[in-house]
Amino acid sequence: MVETTLSPLAPASFPSLPAIAAVRLGTVAAGIKYKDRPDVTFVTFPEGTVVAGVFTRSLTPGAPIQWCRDALAASGGACRALVVNAGNSNVFTGEEGYDASAETARAAAGLLGCAAETVMVSSTGVIGVPLPYEKIVAALPSMALSEDGWEAAARGIMTTDTFPKGATAKALVDGAVVTVNGIAKGSGMIEPNMATMLAYVVTDAAIAAPALDRLLRDVTARSSTPTTVDSDTSASDTVLLFATGAAGHARIEDADDPRLDDFRDRLEGVMGDLARQVVRDGEGATKFITVTVTGAEDDAAAKKVAKSIANSPLVKTAIAGEDANWGRIVMAVGKTYEKVDPTKLSVVFGGQRVTENGRVRTGYDEAALTGHLKGSEIDIAVDLGVGGGRATVWTCDLTHGYIAINADYRS
Amino acid sequence: MVETTLSPLAPASFPSLPAIAAVRLGTVAAGIKYKDRPDVTFVTFPEGTVVAGVFTRSLTPGAPIQWCRDALAASGGACRALVVNAGNSNVFTGEEGYDASAETARAAAGLLGCAAETVMVSSTGVIGVPLPYEKIVAALPSMALSEDGWEAAARGIMTTDTFPKGATAKALVDGAVVTVNGIAKGSGMIEPNMATMLAYVVTDAAIAAPALDRLLRDVTARSSTPTTVDSDTSASDTVLLFATGAAGHARIEDADDPRLDDFRDRLEGVMGDLARQVVRDGEGATKFITVTVTGAEDDAAAKKVAKSIANSPLVKTAIAGEDANWGRIVMAVGKTYEKVDPTKLSVVFGGQRVTENGRVRTGYDEAALTGHLKGSEIDIAVDLGVGGGRATVWTCDLTHGYIAINADYRS
Repeated sequence: MVETTLSPLAPASFPSLPAIAAVRLGTVAAGIKYKDRPDVTFVTFPEGTVVAGVFTRSLTPGAPIQWCRDALAASGGACRALVVNAGNSNVFTGEEGYDASAETARAAAGLLGCAAETVMVSSTGVIGVPLPYEKIVAALPSMALSEDGWEAAARGIMTTDTFPKGATAKALVDGAVVTVNGIAKGSGMIEPNMATMLAYVVTDAAIAAPALDRLLRDVTARSSTPTTVDSDTSASDTVLLFATGAAGHARIEDADDPRLDDFRDRLEGVMGDLARQVVRDGEGATKFITVTVTGAEDDAAAKKVAKSIANSPLVKTAIAGEDANWGRIVMAVGKTYEKVDPTKLSVVFGGQRVTENGRVRTGYDEAALTGHLKGSEIDIAVDLGVGGGRATVWTCDLTHGYIAINADYRS
Repeated sequence: MVETTLSPLAPASFPSLPAIAAVRLGTVAAGIKYKDRPDVTFVTFPEGTVVAGVFTRSLTPGAPIQWCRDALAASGGACRALVVNAGNSNVFTGEEGYDASAETARAAAGLLGCAAETVMVSSTGVIGVPLPYEKIVAALPSMALSEDGWEAAARGIMTTDTFPKGATAKALVDGAVVTVNGIAKGSGMIEPNMATMLAYVVTDAAIAAPALDRLLRDVTARSSTPTTVDSDTSASDTVLLFATGAAGHARIEDADDPRLDDFRDRLEGVMGDLARQVVRDGEGATKFITVTVTGAEDDAAAKKVAKSIANSPLVKTAIAGEDANWGRIVMAVGKTYEKVDPTKLSVVFGGQRVTENGRVRTGYDEAALTGHLKGSEIDIAVDLGVGGGRATVWTCDLTHGYIAINADYRS
């Protein structure tokens, strides 16, 4: 492991996440891979809790993903616990890998007196190494769990993350105030790479399992949570949404019920916040970049262009070098083959419109643009001039730090 | 510009390219952007020469691409000259940019007494800056051209390239021996990035323009010239194939004529050689990586998987770090969503089969693999276990050198 220091884009502190009744969390150093740091996290939920999940679309998913999918199908969404380990992803580990996830779930279920399929499991870390699940099984019985263990849990699920990630919000559902707490891990450049993103969101709202599932899919598909959305990255990407139902309002059966409107907005806010924190912890990142594309043929085209800009190593390295090389942005638009009117194409970089009539706009304030690039929050806004499609994507710059971290990870 | 040193993957020397009768080349320092180095290259062809072109699919192509397309349509493939400048790409330069390309072509045509549309032009370098075409126009009349100017021309078209690129072959067409000479430039990581690749191939074979066009399209679409093929990268990517017809055999009218079989193979060899040289000059590259994918559903699926592996920053950085992290290869397969049988998936890394039955193959020789990774020629072979599709892609590793070059290019 390379010694990593706190990301310069990290928030000042971990937010204060309030307790959610009967949701208890704990973490312990079980020696999965790391030494002297917590690497197994255990969360228990009260009876009646339901869960929905969105997982990686990878065709070589990890064993924990397969376990969660099978368990969700068997349990109908009923859930009593979550076990997460860091340091070993249990990916590409064959049948024994699946058994390791199952044994982990059975051990937790045995402690709670519930069915194994009501236990979700996640693993992140090195690929292809058998998971020493017996260490997890041995650690669970003596773990200290408490309702105020949110920050500890956020730390326990970290791998190459340099800071723990959490977000919280209150929402009104049918007159009741409910809490939405989320924790996440992820520190890669994420898509188009393969670093794993895990996010767990817990609420005390009462929502039927099928409605919760629809809600989660809707929110993760929204453009305002772009890094969370696709789940098309590593073999382990996982977003789980747990609802205990303890808030006291009548259970909502339908995802389209207008009583969920405020909740949906707040959930989207929490998930967007977590997604942005993952970007802020991008490996080697020194700049947080917001790419907004408008005027596209449709939203999908806008997203494709925004991702092309956000994922371009040449754009990312230019920004790392504080170089006002807007030509690379134009090129990243062109290489998507999405419809664009070059004569109307508008590139606004750091607040300066740099293009006009299909060429550089003479007289833009290059000094102001250069000043913007010296900061840590970079804005790129592109209008394609052909339609009403729009999308926002967040990313970070590409630096020597990224190379240092990734050229020496496994060793 | 960052000071660049010769790529450690460069060939020992520039190959000896023989003269092709009446094809004359020259290059001169015209001060387009660089100081004291040749940056304008002029090539003239005898009457009767025809040309075919394959260009970037970018929807924001450079003005020279638009000029070449228009000229080819107007001339029906007749060609008398090629003018290439380095240091300024004439991309995103508006109507004036198109005029600059046209003025360049007109100046060359005036010297030769031919029509402007029989002059091809290319430009590479910085984007969005008006091309000082008057410097090119002023330089052309006094340029010294000769039949042995191949290496000079290969040097004159370089930008961030660290070595000139050339290849040559002889082919038999209808009993006549013909020559195939090629020069190219390109030093980016190419697709999925935006560095420009230019390749010019000249032969004295006699091939009708429509047949030449079909031949070029066929060869660039073949999997053995993968980096040349797609032309889906920068706004300037250009491959031009010129045929003077001076070899003395009867003109071939049909691309499917079996008398072209040997020529087609040799042309593919020259273009593949040039493509591999471009990869060997990848910015910051220290390792040449060959990715071969077999057992895919079809060739297109194989190519998608091979590119996913070749383009993955996590695979590239692992190889830069000489780290036997084959798990990242498995992940790069999975994230394509192409059909794969995980239990049959075979990953052979540096000659060592590392997977078996959906997990790591115990007993592979990790020391041998580590030894392979310390070399500069890296092999990755993946079999997906589902069909007969296959593809080969070449790439290079991702190093601190890439960041250094690209974080400080424009400044």
